[in-house]
Amino acid sequence: MYGAGDVRIETVRDPEIMQPTDAVVRIVRTCICGSDLHPYHSLPSTPGGTPMGHEFIGVVEEVGSDVTTLAPGDFVIAPFAWSDGTCDFCREGLQTSCRHGGFWAGNGIGGGQAEAVRVPQADGTLVKVPADVDASLYPSLLTLSDVYGTGYHAALTGGVTAGTDVTVIGDGAVGLLAVLSAKQLGAERIILMGRHEARTDLGREFGATDVVSARGEEGVAAVRDLTGGDGTRVVLEAVGHMPAYEQAVGVVRHGGVISRVGVPQYEEAAVGFGSLFGPNITLTGGPAPVRAYIDRLLPGVLDGTVDPGRVFDRTVSLEEVPEGYRAMDERTALKVIVEP
Amino acid sequence: MYGAGDVRIETVRDPEIMQPTDAVVRIVRTCICGSDLHPYHSLPSTPGGTPMGHEFIGVVEEVGSDVTTLAPGDFVIAPFAWSDGTCDFCREGLQTSCRHGGFWAGNGIGGGQAEAVRVPQADGTLVKVPADVDASLYPSLLTLSDVYGTGYHAALTGGVTAGTDVTVIGDGAVGLLAVLSAKQLGAERIILMGRHEARTDLGREFGATDVVSARGEEGVAAVRDLTGGDGTRVVLEAVGHMPAYEQAVGVVRHGGVISRVGVPQYEEAAVGFGSLFGPNITLTGGPAPVRAYIDRLLPGVLDGTVDPGRVFDRTVSLEEVPEGYRAMDERTALKVIVEP
Repeated sequence: MYGAGDVRIETVRDPEIMQPTDAVVRIVRTCICGSDLHPYHSLPSTPGGTPMGHEFIGVVEEVGSDVTTLAPGDFVIAPFAWSDGTCDFCREGLQTSCRHGGFWAGNGIGGGQAEAVRVPQADGTLVKVPADVDASLYPSLLTLSDVYGTGYHAALTGGVTAGTDVTVIGDGAVGLLAVLSAKQLGAERIILMGRHEARTDLGREFGATDVVSARGEEGVAAVRDLTGGDGTRVVLEAVGHMPAYEQAVGVVRHGGVISRVGVPQYEEAAVGFGSLFGPNITLTGGPAPVRAYIDRLLPGVLDGTVDPGRVFDRTVSLEEVPEGYRAMDERTALKVIVEP
Repeated sequence: MYGAGDVRIETVRDPEIMQPTDAVVRIVRTCICGSDLHPYHSLPSTPGGTPMGHEFIGVVEEVGSDVTTLAPGDFVIAPFAWSDGTCDFCREGLQTSCRHGGFWAGNGIGGGQAEAVRVPQADGTLVKVPADVDASLYPSLLTLSDVYGTGYHAALTGGVTAGTDVTVIGDGAVGLLAVLSAKQLGAERIILMGRHEARTDLGREFGATDVVSARGEEGVAAVRDLTGGDGTRVVLEAVGHMPAYEQAVGVVRHGGVISRVGVPQYEEAAVGFGSLFGPNITLTGGPAPVRAYIDRLLPGVLDGTVDPGRVFDRTVSLEEVPEGYRAMDERTALKVIVEP
């Protein structure tokens, strides 16, 4: 990406092992993230551009001399953050704060929207999948890179358990998979706030019991109407813009939890007596340590219990990635999968 | 209080039973709260003034016809919020959000800095104490009205358990009792940020293992130094001013919790990627439902396991209450107890 709206496909040097803990992975599927639309709207122009993409599944091509758990030919899922798997944060399940970790597409690490990528801390980062996995499962496996684990993080840190009532704000891939995750964790009532009918229909299939298409004050009033005036105990905020935060504050019940996984496009927000403090609202969430959740969520994907890959509704080649960005930006595609 | 800095003792009508669920309580001890200093600094002048005080212990003088659990002569503790004890919020232990509850010193309800007060929802609100309790326990019993329960709320909602490391911001009564509460809940390391040596000395006796007197960036750096650069997993914010919030964000470990019980004197604050979101920090807390904690904390007060009443370091008569405000405002008194 060379600037806002300017996505180009370039031929670059093949990735190589640079550290003994590296692996090189040939990418089988990658995709475009809702969060990629933030730079797509606002990235300042640069002559060199920046690689893009942080979600991929692929096959290990080569490993460094210190890599012990992976070998060429292994089929792997990569989380959107790489991590050593051994530091205290990793052991606690907060791999996004790994002491030797980082994020794709920066600091000399390539992006996932490519044919191949160098993976640092390969033992800690990559999760091996049975090599004979059917290609029909690729989309769902790919959601474990980010959007499914992110939706799950929202629901888990939000404290969803059996019988919880939940509002999910946002009908993008993360919002829909927050619905799926809340359902998996036992939520009883799941109100999905979104205004794209095809998406909210999928949300209903994932477990939403109610859909509110109104936004702002009208949307808040609609959720309050559905909940006897109280709002829901848990709110999962999967957008990241200020109006979504305001909606979250508007629909959360006293004593409840707002769990954010939409990357905030603001720094300051209302947290005082009139918003969070007075009614004892908890604000939680952050970038999901999806690496912590892959082991837990993978079995349900492999045995077909869940089909999170349904969030992909468009397939493009690597050359068509710029068109994929456009489609997601114009909301003609929910989430675009890329076959390099 | 007739305006900022203007506290007067007035003769008013005796409180009377107005609802069948009321009681009238003759006050045995009341006190001045750190939070009373906020209006003491900023209350606009009014001709009628407003009653003050929300912490008291006393003896029931009269009960309404619907009151079933109390009788004249009962010795009682009053939480700083009154509540019916039967609604869903009360049953969940969030009495500050009671559907038929409220706060002292407003809407026709008197304040605790008085000789007697009408108590709405008396069955739900008041907690009976053995009538022969020794007067030496009055100060500690009085802390159950607010500051002890508030410190406990901070520690509990902050998730303090055995072995947790904690920073407490603020060496007022609530901060010191947050230290005591964290210790009771099993915290291993408790860093107290405060700069009044007599107070932080009491904090050490309550369980603080370290004291940091520096504030702002210097204070944050000192806590980071003490914690290998990481900060502590739990931060209890017992002040309510923006610099205290900023300190909390500065000293909390990735994945940690900031629990606020200082009434925020701001509405907006930093919560974006660079403060709370990126490191997966949880922000929680609010007005403490102290009614929920009295049953739990009372036995330790009655049997002398804890002595939270040590936060009182000055006793005044009702006539001397204006002087009590001055002393607390000038920090010559930590917390002032009133003997009407």
